[in-house]
Amino acid sequence: MKALKEAIEKYGVGIGTEVVKVDSFLNHRIDVALSTEMGKAFYEAFKDDRVDCILTVEASGIAAAMTAAQAFGNIPVVFAKKGDHRNVGNDVYTAEVYSFTHQKLNVIRVSRKYLEKGMRVLIIDDFLANGEAIHGLMDILNQAGCVLVGAGVCVEKGFQPGGRNLRESGVKVVSLAIVDAIEDGKIILREG
Amino acid sequence: MKALKEAIEKYGVGIGTEVVKVDSFLNHRIDVALSTEMGKAFYEAFKDDRVDCILTVEASGIAAAMTAAQAFGNIPVVFAKKGDHRNVGNDVYTAEVYSFTHQKLNVIRVSRKYLEKGMRVLIIDDFLANGEAIHGLMDILNQAGCVLVGAGVCVEKGFQPGGRNLRESGVKVVSLAIVDAIEDGKIILREG
Repeated sequence: MKALKEAIEKYGVGIGTEVVKVDSFLNHRIDVALSTEMGKAFYEAFKDDRVDCILTVEASGIAAAMTAAQAFGNIPVVFAKKGDHRNVGNDVYTAEVYSFTHQKLNVIRVSRKYLEKGMRVLIIDDFLANGEAIHGLMDILNQAGCVLVGAGVCVEKGFQPGGRNLRESGVKVVSLAIVDAIEDGKIILREG
Repeated sequence: MKALKEAIEKYGVGIGTEVVKVDSFLNHRIDVALSTEMGKAFYEAFKDDRVDCILTVEASGIAAAMTAAQAFGNIPVVFAKKGDHRNVGNDVYTAEVYSFTHQKLNVIRVSRKYLEKGMRVLIIDDFLANGEAIHGLMDILNQAGCVLVGAGVCVEKGFQPGGRNLRESGVKVVSLAIVDAIEDGKIILREG
């Protein structure tokens, strides 16, 4: 997606060989016009897949999930919660997700009543690196008997194996931008 | 706001005398059409206040912050992060926020570069109870030299002191629905 790639090239910061910082427009400060355009791009990619609901995980996935849901005509968003939330209740699906960014194991959870059997669900997230978060969400969808339509991701780190593994297992993954490498602080984006 | 009050009456669950569960449409599963309408209501309430930027705190405030920012013509959203995030960097403003819901002290942080001195900022959050989160965000705005325009809240617990204290200290607080009490599981909303 052109506008996102331009934003990454202009404002993204590459650190070392692995860290892509896009917190000036994606996951700390949010460029709301760009986020709205990303939502439309996800709609274009999945509009023929009869999506009933969008599933993401707090916190950084929520913005893109919201704008995608708007583009789909205001379908519901469900966001998985991390950790021990008193108000979520006990009647939840859970999955374990290792966060490389924060170097800890999170438990994510979704109330059972918001994922009905047979529901067609699109996963949206801001980042795809090793694929831990998406696998955790897929685990929950599997427990709920939902149909995974695919995964829409704002920024994929193409040099980490998450996206490749998901595609090889048959998941429809659409990434709006793919980072192929970070070289001397410069973020190298995949063309096309 | 009529649609929100109707949703609270129809889908909200009161527990004990203090807990208002609205996770079926506000802070776990999101009714995106309703959230978009709430964003417009915040715009109506603050449209004459020359808002430059919306500040919220992850995770449940992000949806309403996004739709409000859209209603303001796509102004930026900044969301404060909780806990120790490696990618936020050291150049941050921090504040301590006690969460009654999760019974722990959180540190919230915002990168200094996203809050410029003199910027007119509207705080948006999903809930206002004791006011801890909003006070933490106000502390950060104060450190940054920003101008607090006011606070827009989806659901205020009118039986807890946060809203009253903020208004008495001169803050413009706009709550789209105010819960006055929970009686035998029934959520009593303030009229008008």
